[in-house]
Amino acid sequence: MVKIRIEVSYLEGVEDPEASTLQHNLGVLGYDSIDKTRILKIYELSFAEDEHTALGMAKAIAENLLINPVINKYDIIILGEE
Amino acid sequence: MVKIRIEVSYLEGVEDPEASTLQHNLGVLGYDSIDKTRILKIYELSFAEDEHTALGMAKAIAENLLINPVINKYDIIILGEE
Repeated sequence: MVKIRIEVSYLEGVEDPEASTLQHNLGVLGYDSIDKTRILKIYELSFAEDEHTALGMAKAIAENLLINPVINKYDIIILGEE
Repeated sequence: MVKIRIEVSYLEGVEDPEASTLQHNLGVLGYDSIDKTRILKIYELSFAEDEHTALGMAKAIAENLLINPVINKYDIIILGEE
């Protein structure tokens, strides 16, 4: 069994409205020294397959189901066998 | 300037409905060998302060604004000076 982490974030140059709002609101609350905010979503999936097969499945899941390639990118991190 | 990552996840034993739905739907689509799914949300904040001060601010932001302590936990990772 192998555990894989898929990190989904916005492409460079695409504005993340949730991150912008968070940064603005933190500023209103007094945290005005934060000059960059980024929000990512992480999917951790445990596969019964071996690492090579699981990696292929994780890529297919990320590209076909989890991201919108027009605005998102993803990174895959293998967290290891369990 | 220091960049800090706040990882928000569900406490052990709390069911994450989004993760459960994702796992179920992946199974329907043929990815039925995934036996555990976890979804985390990551906030990456760049602070103008030094590391020690920024860490205190990040903890306060996480505890007071980003998480619901009844169902969430958080980890803080210092990504380093910029």
